[in-house]
Amino acid sequence: KQEFSKYPTKAGRRSLSRSISQSSTDSYSSAASYTDSSDDETSPRDKAQVNTHGSADFCVKNIKQAEFGRREIEIAEQDMSALISLRKRAQGEKPLAGAKIVGCTHITAQTAVLIETLVALGAQCRWTACNIYSTQNEVAAALAETGVPVFAWKGESEDDFWWCIDRCVNTEGWQANMILDDGGDLTHWVYKKYPSVFKKVRGIVEESVTGVHRLYQLSKAGKLCVPAMNVNDSVTKQKFDNLYCCRESILDGLKRTTDIMFGGKQVVVCGYGEVGKGCCTALKALGAIVCITEIDPICALQACMDGFRVVKLSEVIRQMDVVITCTGNKNVVTREQLDRMKNGCIVCNMGHSNTEIDVASLRSPELTWERVRSQVDHIIWPDGKRVVLLAEGRLLNLSCSTVPTFVLSITATTQALALIELFNAPEGRYKQDVYLLPKKMDEYVASLHLPNFDAHLTELTDEQAKYMGLNKNGPFKPNYYR
Amino acid sequence: KQEFSKYPTKAGRRSLSRSISQSSTDSYSSAASYTDSSDDETSPRDKAQVNTHGSADFCVKNIKQAEFGRREIEIAEQDMSALISLRKRAQGEKPLAGAKIVGCTHITAQTAVLIETLVALGAQCRWTACNIYSTQNEVAAALAETGVPVFAWKGESEDDFWWCIDRCVNTEGWQANMILDDGGDLTHWVYKKYPSVFKKVRGIVEESVTGVHRLYQLSKAGKLCVPAMNVNDSVTKQKFDNLYCCRESILDGLKRTTDIMFGGKQVVVCGYGEVGKGCCTALKALGAIVCITEIDPICALQACMDGFRVVKLSEVIRQMDVVITCTGNKNVVTREQLDRMKNGCIVCNMGHSNTEIDVASLRSPELTWERVRSQVDHIIWPDGKRVVLLAEGRLLNLSCSTVPTFVLSITATTQALALIELFNAPEGRYKQDVYLLPKKMDEYVASLHLPNFDAHLTELTDEQAKYMGLNKNGPFKPNYYR
Amino acid sequence: KQEFSKYPTKAGRRSLSRSISQSSTDSYSSAASYTDSSDDETSPRDKAQVNTHGSADFCVKNIKQAEFGRREIEIAEQDMSALISLRKRAQGEKPLAGAKIVGCTHITAQTAVLIETLVALGAQCRWTACNIYSTQNEVAAALAETGVPVFAWKGESEDDFWWCIDRCVNTEGWQANMILDDGGDLTHWVYKKYPSVFKKVRGIVEESVTGVHRLYQLSKAGKLCVPAMNVNDSVTKQKFDNLYCCRESILDGLKRTTDIMFGGKQVVVCGYGEVGKGCCTALKALGAIVCITEIDPICALQACMDGFRVVKLSEVIRQMDVVITCTGNKNVVTREQLDRMKNGCIVCNMGHSNTEIDVASLRSPELTWERVRSQVDHIIWPDGKRVVLLAEGRLLNLSCSTVPTFVLSITATTQALALIELFNAPEGRYKQDVYLLPKKMDEYVASLHLPNFDAHLTELTDEQAKYMGLNKNGPFKPNYYR
Amino acid sequence: KQEFSKYPTKAGRRSLSRSISQSSTDSYSSAASYTDSSDDETSPRDKAQVNTHGSADFCVKNIKQAEFGRREIEIAEQDMSALISLRKRAQGEKPLAGAKIVGCTHITAQTAVLIETLVALGAQCRWTACNIYSTQNEVAAALAETGVPVFAWKGESEDDFWWCIDRCVNTEGWQANMILDDGGDLTHWVYKKYPSVFKKVRGIVEESVTGVHRLYQLSKAGKLCVPAMNVNDSVTKQKFDNLYCCRESILDGLKRTTDIMFGGKQVVVCGYGEVGKGCCTALKALGAIVCITEIDPICALQACMDGFRVVKLSEVIRQMDVVITCTGNKNVVTREQLDRMKNGCIVCNMGHSNTEIDVASLRSPELTWERVRSQVDHIIWPDGKRVVLLAEGRLLNLSCSTVPTFVLSITATTQALALIELFNAPEGRYKQDVYLLPKKMDEYVASLHLPNFDAHLTELTDEQAKYMGLNKNGPFKPNYYR
Repeated sequence: KQEFSKYPTKAGRRSLSRSISQSSTDSYSSAASYTDSSDDETSPRDKAQVNTHGSADFCVKNIKQAEFGRREIEIAEQDMSALISLRKRAQGEKPLAGAKIVGCTHITAQTAVLIETLVALGAQCRWTACNIYSTQNEVAAALAETGVPVFAWKGESEDDFWWCIDRCVNTEGWQANMILDDGGDLTHWVYKKYPSVFKKVRGIVEESVTGVHRLYQLSKAGKLCVPAMNVNDSVTKQKFDNLYCCRESILDGLKRTTDIMFGGKQVVVCGYGEVGKGCCTALKALGAIVCITEIDPICALQACMDGFRVVKLSEVIRQMDVVITCTGNKNVVTREQLDRMKNGCIVCNMGHSNTEIDVASLRSPELTWERVRSQVDHIIWPDGKRVVLLAEGRLLNLSCSTVPTFVLSITATTQALALIELFNAPEGRYKQDVYLLPKKMDEYVASLHLPNFDAHLTELTDEQAKYMGLNKNGPFKPNYYR
Repeated sequence: KQEFSKYPTKAGRRSLSRSISQSSTDSYSSAASYTDSSDDETSPRDKAQVNTHGSADFCVKNIKQAEFGRREIEIAEQDMSALISLRKRAQGEKPLAGAKIVGCTHITAQTAVLIETLVALGAQCRWTACNIYSTQNEVAAALAETGVPVFAWKGESEDDFWWCIDRCVNTEGWQANMILDDGGDLTHWVYKKYPSVFKKVRGIVEESVTGVHRLYQLSKAGKLCVPAMNVNDSVTKQKFDNLYCCRESILDGLKRTTDIMFGGKQVVVCGYGEVGKGCCTALKALGAIVCITEIDPICALQACMDGFRVVKLSEVIRQMDVVITCTGNKNVVTREQLDRMKNGCIVCNMGHSNTEIDVASLRSPELTWERVRSQVDHIIWPDGKRVVLLAEGRLLNLSCSTVPTFVLSITATTQALALIELFNAPEGRYKQDVYLLPKKMDEYVASLHLPNFDAHLTELTDEQAKYMGLNKNGPFKPNYYR
Repeated sequence: KQEFSKYPTKAGRRSLSRSISQSSTDSYSSAASYTDSSDDETSPRDKAQVNTHGSADFCVKNIKQAEFGRREIEIAEQDMSALISLRKRAQGEKPLAGAKIVGCTHITAQTAVLIETLVALGAQCRWTACNIYSTQNEVAAALAETGVPVFAWKGESEDDFWWCIDRCVNTEGWQANMILDDGGDLTHWVYKKYPSVFKKVRGIVEESVTGVHRLYQLSKAGKLCVPAMNVNDSVTKQKFDNLYCCRESILDGLKRTTDIMFGGKQVVVCGYGEVGKGCCTALKALGAIVCITEIDPICALQACMDGFRVVKLSEVIRQMDVVITCTGNKNVVTREQLDRMKNGCIVCNMGHSNTEIDVASLRSPELTWERVRSQVDHIIWPDGKRVVLLAEGRLLNLSCSTVPTFVLSITATTQALALIELFNAPEGRYKQDVYLLPKKMDEYVASLHLPNFDAHLTELTDEQAKYMGLNKNGPFKPNYYR
Repeated sequence: KQEFSKYPTKAGRRSLSRSISQSSTDSYSSAASYTDSSDDETSPRDKAQVNTHGSADFCVKNIKQAEFGRREIEIAEQDMSALISLRKRAQGEKPLAGAKIVGCTHITAQTAVLIETLVALGAQCRWTACNIYSTQNEVAAALAETGVPVFAWKGESEDDFWWCIDRCVNTEGWQANMILDDGGDLTHWVYKKYPSVFKKVRGIVEESVTGVHRLYQLSKAGKLCVPAMNVNDSVTKQKFDNLYCCRESILDGLKRTTDIMFGGKQVVVCGYGEVGKGCCTALKALGAIVCITEIDPICALQACMDGFRVVKLSEVIRQMDVVITCTGNKNVVTREQLDRMKNGCIVCNMGHSNTEIDVASLRSPELTWERVRSQVDHIIWPDGKRVVLLAEGRLLNLSCSTVPTFVLSITATTQALALIELFNAPEGRYKQDVYLLPKKMDEYVASLHLPNFDAHLTELTDEQAKYMGLNKNGPFKPNYYR
């Protein structure tokens, strides 16, 4: 229970763009500085706030920040044209008319674009945050101002967290019939406190690794009482999220924190999955000399063929300028290895959670910690050697860079389509089980994002479609395609 | 039935390295030139030949070429150290002792290394060719010389083809208990002529798309009477074969035929699957300006993110210097588009079969064909415009370049492991069905290839394995991983 | 006269790293925030300050910030190990003993490392700033604290600027015998006010394009009365500065201001000189689709061979997502072209000064300017179209990113060597003319930077040196090499 | 004197495209095989041949091959459109009317296009070969057929070589007034035998490093009696030739000889000049892991910044899969290092001459040489280790691949313009000295090649030209630009 709020889940990496840019752009954005200067320490729970329409059915930090939030939402909309185009295409038929969606996600400009799309398609929404740190207060205010009951602020306590969820679900005269969850906490709460709600719920859409895992467990235990859609494992998410996100953000995260020059730097990347591949591509392209550690021979062989030496960390640790973990495992960088790093070596984590670097081992009396910038600590050995630790071992791109809005748009569009599919599916199409998005919908999500690139798809001729045994409108991928 | 020998199957691309290099190295290799100078027109079937051990149980072009073939095999061994290492590891326990394998594959230096590995592991082998053109005569001779009954030569007639298969299967005092097939023709022949053989057969290992397709059809029809292993869809094959093979061979194929300079060339690649990705990577890296056509929005979006414009062929056809098809479809380049190409445009196919370019449409009276080099035709329009057609639209890398032995080694090692697995599996593990290679074996194949790169795998600690829920020795990939 | 302080000179790009990171890291660095929180509006000229050694011979914003400045200097030292190693190698012989250097450069952590190196080598220094905005106050304080008379602060008026220069030169009991200048203003002032100083001056070292230009004019006019060293055109500077600096900073500058995703973006880069080459390399590597405009056929042909389409700006302007100028020219992007850009197009300048984009034309009543972040303006057309203008058309990397300390180290080391050379040259080696650094010194500068990369040079054997007609210790390049 | 014919000069690398492709395409080209099958061993000097126009003023292998040569010339013309366009632009005014040019170059399809351009512009030409091996016999025949007196064949003896030169120069009723030389042998011969010819000669155009060196020596010694143009050091040649040629040909040369897979190969490139940079770019792009050796700290620092480790050869020699020399020096790879290479290591030379690898040291009794293919030797150590030596240490791309016609076109166009400039220069513009091509002509050469890429140059506005201090038509580069 504790874990949910402490560390961003894997899903978190993908959704947290704004909570990140929040901090990273403090110095640029007047909106943000306005927000920050709020020395108001009163808990939102203790404030009486009303929006300009007279509604008080929300709880945010400061409703007056709505205008600033609106501008952030508008900026996000520019890179989320797929959602906007979905709004336009489906607005006439209002495919979510009658849907009452309770949602629990990061509350950022990007999710605001999703929520407002759902509303435009006919849904009623109530919303809360899936992470106690990630809420953009001004965005929450902007949503509340337009009439969406939002219960979230940056820096909630654990008690606040559950209070907010409860306020979302437990309201008079309104009962949710759809759940959009990111991490499974909302689903958990409803199961525990208001199981009767499930009688009306047509489905759950879940985005995170953790939440999906919980759903499969429920399903195995025979306790899943409504259909659920596993958005995390959809093709578009898997194919685009990790690889491209990390390719875009690794350079940014390192540069903003350390002003490092990439040319000629010796870098070891631990793990050559999609995250590692993205990091390696970008670093090599900018002139770094990259090597890899791997446990899995298949990924190791790919690294070889892609031109990276595959080494054990201990063999190379003394020479490295930068160490990046991308494994999803724990204690990948140990105290012993930290001891052997050279002066000035930068250590950071792009993988999962904050377990990959054994940061705890550095909190020992013989080592001195010096915070030189936000998110940047120098750990100083008795002989004067310094190791540069970023974000205390938490996810670098979550903490110190932004995630492209465009990639978030892919996930958000997938969530919207999953909600539409579950809400409109004829009785019986989906049982009390966990489903993957139909391949054809994955392709539809992708096609909605092509106009951003002025990309023109080719259409099969009748003859070609027949030759290939395909429908001209897809799906083009077999079901087992990943 | 006709198709099998006319056009290399998709599998063919992977196996034909030597039959290719055969022609491509004619001018280099004294061995080859020796072979070529054989003006001997007598059919091998009409010759009486005996090897130096006195055996006449084979039928090859010229047993005297054995020494030259041996040298080609030795060269191949250098890049197939995974198989050699498999020989060494498994030689003591002879896991194929008792196996009687009848095989039908391309007969090249690389398959010779496979066959001799099977023999070293204890098997008895009889072999024939799966393609009437692809046999390296001197390699066949070298195998026959060491006592493997081989029935194959370059330039068989269709009648020869089936005669060879028959001689392999139908021999006194020896009955196969394993089948290794590439294309399904051997399997087909046994089903048709000697169905009783299947009583003893413990399994079929099939490599090609076509052969696998036939097996699934047999299985569906309830007619598959032994277990079969689908090697074509194994992870190692899928992950390495298309992408890396094409990345290595596209430049080579174009350079050898046209001496083209890549810098600044406008290239359109039709299809952004693995084959297209490999081609695009190599061409872009050498300074070509590449754009893509796609029917599938997911692949199209990947192309966009990777920095390629996605266009319709008709939009760009006038500007292109090179057109490459990688779709697996038919008539991807039509006569109308050929009419609109600019003077000197090069057209070739890296995809499937020879259907992608509508070559038939070019055989019309108003166009003049001029063969300027082997595999290179100039098609001349009435106004003098020339289009450069490579390999008459057949697979470019099959026809005009080599395929890396190392990649062939991955497939050959997978075949050997599949044979070992099926031969040694406890009764009942495999039913009368088509199976994929267990993930762990895929990983073992990969691990056998790592020493080539001096790559060092990291081992999980007990603590890490537990954290990840993995066995320290793998498999590391979930079953659904592809 | 006005120009010098308003716009960073070309030299500025290279030297301003810290003044940039100053602003860019405000949100990270507690040091910086301390600095910023100084609401002290008193002019430094009106303050009485004394350092801890009792000296008052300096004028900085706040001597109490010295400790924070020291830390910034220490961080810079880590990437300037060439200078540190120069200190060590030359410290015993004190090659600058007796040198009295008056300097006028940006005052940043990096120049502080240079100044302290000069002191370590025996020189006495007095220093002032060459730019009214670029001084890092805390670094100036740190220098003043150690006893270097520094006269500089961030935000000087023009009057302050000349006052500071004057205080540097015009002091009792001390007369400069060496000048280190960046932009030529110090040299200009001495010529105008204290020409007699030149009687003792052994030489001028000048770094900037502008300053070098002025020196050549003086030389042509027969008015140059001491030898001068043109550091700007030294090989190391030319070969490393523009190309690698821009490769490192273009992504950073765009990301920090706009959070743009690079994958698939259509970018036009105006100018394919070293700056343009650096930008294109980085952008292409991250998946952008880049085209080029050029006036010079040689650079255009290089762009073609490197795989970039060469176009006219007007042909492509409607499709572009990003427009980057790197020409050194004026009005490269005109109002007419700005009118034709698509919604959301980003426009920025990596070239020279702020003339490349016709920003003035955008300050017209029908357009609305909206500042969305620091350095980011939305220019809004009547129809709602927005163009995103960065840094108001000033140099993007100067304004919105950092320049790698390592590259600055190359320039600073060159300056130090030029000072040593001029100060120690035997009478008559240098006349009253402008000189380039001897090639051998360029090579020495490069060699001092190799240990950062753990790079190992090969030495010529006697036989090889003879064969090549080279001295084993260099120079290896002919004099005309650039 | 001995040197000229034995080893291709550095210039050779650039010009030999066809002599290379000659051998490399033997197996493809019917033309070539026709040529090769000529078992005619009679020396051309002893044959009486007449072309179809009745002329006997030539000496080639076989005038009957003219038609095949014509086709090769036509193929070359397709990639030399700059020369063709020069023909068209200058054909009306016949700028070479009255020019009598004696030429000594490689005789290949590409130089034939040059010669025929000179003729089209009004010149009379007599031609001979600068290399005893490089003549394409069928191209020489095609030239002779059209009436150009050509004296050259493949496989001349040294005596033949000088005889041919003499026949070119020493003819009744015709005296050269221009010399086009490649290597300086023609110039040398005229100096020695017919010094009076120089009274009428308006200038010498020399392309090779060696020839230029000789001219500078003559000039220094005061013996140069006509103006000479150094084409070797023109910008277009320097900027395009080495870098792009090697980038295009290194992969091809390795692949054709060894069928090597590049992915994951450990490669050391000795020398990071333009040749080395071209090789490294291509190899890294295809997945090889490349490191560098250098003697020059400036090039070493570039290698570092570009992402290559800089090492000493001895440190890495044991691990390398491929060793490539690009230094221009001798004994860069020594016997001691050859002894330490691993089994299967490939060694080749892309640099200068055949001195870089100490091949002589390998011709010792304890080592066995085995020729496995043309240009490929296995050197076998007593313990069975094999090292793969390509082209016996001669230039790999000269011997085993082609050089892009397009790059040769740049050099040929430069030669044509140099001839036009010298022939038409007003009296006194050029003295008895060695000149570089005026920058503006370099730019003109480049501009003639842009249409190949459909590249569109931007023109300066009047205002911009004034701001930059440039003429709108160039030159755009300063004189010292290289």
